[in-house]
Amino acid sequence: MFNFDFYNPTRIVFGKDRLVSLEQLVPANANILITFGGGSAKKSGLMDKVKEALGSRKVLEFGGIEPNPRYETLIKAADVVREEGIDFLLAVGGGSVIDGTKFISLASNYSGEPSDLLKFGFIPIPLDVVGKAIPIGTVLTLPGTGSEMNTGAVISYENGKYPVMSGLTFPKFSILDPTITYTLPKIQAANGIIDTFVHTTEQYLTYPVNGLLQDRFAEGILLTLIEIGLKSVDEPGNYDVRANHVWCATLALNGLIGAGVPQDWATHMIGHELTAMFGIDHAQTLAIVLPSMLEVRRDKKRAKLLQYADRVWNIQTGSEDEKIDLAIQKTREFFESLGVKTRLSEYGVSADKIPDVVEQLKVHRMAVLSETQDLTLNISQKILENAM
Amino acid sequence: MFNFDFYNPTRIVFGKDRLVSLEQLVPANANILITFGGGSAKKSGLMDKVKEALGSRKVLEFGGIEPNPRYETLIKAADVVREEGIDFLLAVGGGSVIDGTKFISLASNYSGEPSDLLKFGFIPIPLDVVGKAIPIGTVLTLPGTGSEMNTGAVISYENGKYPVMSGLTFPKFSILDPTITYTLPKIQAANGIIDTFVHTTEQYLTYPVNGLLQDRFAEGILLTLIEIGLKSVDEPGNYDVRANHVWCATLALNGLIGAGVPQDWATHMIGHELTAMFGIDHAQTLAIVLPSMLEVRRDKKRAKLLQYADRVWNIQTGSEDEKIDLAIQKTREFFESLGVKTRLSEYGVSADKIPDVVEQLKVHRMAVLSETQDLTLNISQKILENAM
Repeated sequence: MFNFDFYNPTRIVFGKDRLVSLEQLVPANANILITFGGGSAKKSGLMDKVKEALGSRKVLEFGGIEPNPRYETLIKAADVVREEGIDFLLAVGGGSVIDGTKFISLASNYSGEPSDLLKFGFIPIPLDVVGKAIPIGTVLTLPGTGSEMNTGAVISYENGKYPVMSGLTFPKFSILDPTITYTLPKIQAANGIIDTFVHTTEQYLTYPVNGLLQDRFAEGILLTLIEIGLKSVDEPGNYDVRANHVWCATLALNGLIGAGVPQDWATHMIGHELTAMFGIDHAQTLAIVLPSMLEVRRDKKRAKLLQYADRVWNIQTGSEDEKIDLAIQKTREFFESLGVKTRLSEYGVSADKIPDVVEQLKVHRMAVLSETQDLTLNISQKILENAM
Repeated sequence: MFNFDFYNPTRIVFGKDRLVSLEQLVPANANILITFGGGSAKKSGLMDKVKEALGSRKVLEFGGIEPNPRYETLIKAADVVREEGIDFLLAVGGGSVIDGTKFISLASNYSGEPSDLLKFGFIPIPLDVVGKAIPIGTVLTLPGTGSEMNTGAVISYENGKYPVMSGLTFPKFSILDPTITYTLPKIQAANGIIDTFVHTTEQYLTYPVNGLLQDRFAEGILLTLIEIGLKSVDEPGNYDVRANHVWCATLALNGLIGAGVPQDWATHMIGHELTAMFGIDHAQTLAIVLPSMLEVRRDKKRAKLLQYADRVWNIQTGSEDEKIDLAIQKTREFFESLGVKTRLSEYGVSADKIPDVVEQLKVHRMAVLSETQDLTLNISQKILENAM
């Protein structure tokens, strides 16, 4: 097991009818900016309930944060924060709204050119660059990204997607009420399951380091997702199913299962380019890239793929490669059972576009990827070709 | 799944050679009291390394905190805290030292009679009783109690053991260096495995509430303990084994696996009386009570016992009761394989003492126990008789 630090001070407020907790969770004299997305939070009546729970606190709103939140939008919100003396940000939405709100929180405390903040990648922004941030709370509407209990964000700028990390942007609290997710479109529920699944495999399907408990926890998330995934899409009002979906999503990316073990993230990095270039939903890019990546990288990941076949898919017979083939096939079938296609060609992207994707990886300094830092651009190309 | 709050801001600093982190973790101008137990931390050279890492900070020492830390001892330490203007407590030890240090932290900020603080049981001490506490850091030497990442303590006073909870006593950090545990006597390693195992079953072997992920995580801890338990006792210098032992112990009682599910704790409450009356090690009382309790309570716990038999012990054949019998037998055999006896008579306690134990449960307001609050004194008596 590798050495690690684990620290996660976000307060999770989980369950039915928890919005009333806002009264205790948000400072009484807060000057709040509520951030949200395309308006479904307003249409569903959620926003009214949030404002009611906030009582007489001063509240402004900033809507229109896009899926794959765009830098230009967030900069406008940061201006509002400064102009209006906002001292609390309440994100009401899914991962894009929460990610965007983290960036607003940092950018509004940065006096330089805010696009500077996109250049740190997976390295947390140093405190001498941004030394404080506006505190954030969240009301989660779409379980999947895990952003509600971590410090990460992914921001879209020009034609790239940029990870932004900072120890200052742990949400102070996140309200996870599964009933709030009942109105999600089916495809977004499916996306949430797949996003959670691939967050888990990024931290699990690497190479063994005797992180026995981390492996068991990762397998526990995968087994739970397989058990409830289709139900979460088909039975949106099934409380227990959605509750498990939500809790899996949060725990898949709060630092716990990745503590002390290698991490890959190649599927995400390649997927980001597919979103940026072709507008394919984030989770759908993961469903395209993961099975293909596992096929191409089977030798690097052999030991963990065999463990995955055994413990997650209960595959006990056949040669090693037959077991691995079947595990990958079952992964693909699971994604497809949720209504998500797993071939790049099915999203209208033709093979002649692949060199452009690879070029973008190069531009975005993703020329070597994976837990072993030996997944070169040639291999990325092979993965994309194999995903057609 | 039940509604729940989850909040745990303790920073875990895990791995080899992490003591040097004290330099960053402890405020530079801190006035520190190092708390410890019987002196093995001094003998092993650990204390010297701790003080070296603390550099020029002002340090006092308070040793002699007993296993099952005693109120009278801790009150003396609280006096030192007040007299010397201590503003940081550094616990170097196992659960008893850490539990005791939490109580010192609270008692030194309470102006009334400190034994008042023992009367709240599992209810956190209200902020209007104790409104602040001295910050605590820990260097763990004995993995088992989980005290390094939670707010709980158990304090011995007169002839009872009293749970003390407070939201103020999360350690700010805990340094978990598995190599520090290499010098533990075998029996303490075995105790740590059993303590962790029973912390897990207290939150898992109850009744189903569709906490699918919580169940998987609990099963993951149990499976890992079964995989490494004997090795942790027999191969104290096996880093990976000890690392998994330590991480299991912390995660079994940091609030995670118990969030949103019923909890039992009858085994602990009955076990506490056996420690208080007969001086049996805490973990050994759990090894005595758990198998017997599961036999007696099999109908209340039937669904989860069958799940436990299936997923933890891989028992697939036989009638329901045969499966349950075998799972309990395997649990008992696991404890005994670690060198810990599981029968009360083997600790020199005769059956005629059982009514006295039951009387003590009554005195300590433990007349009804368990996740369903229907484990009466009569049933406690039956459990103890069955444990002979």
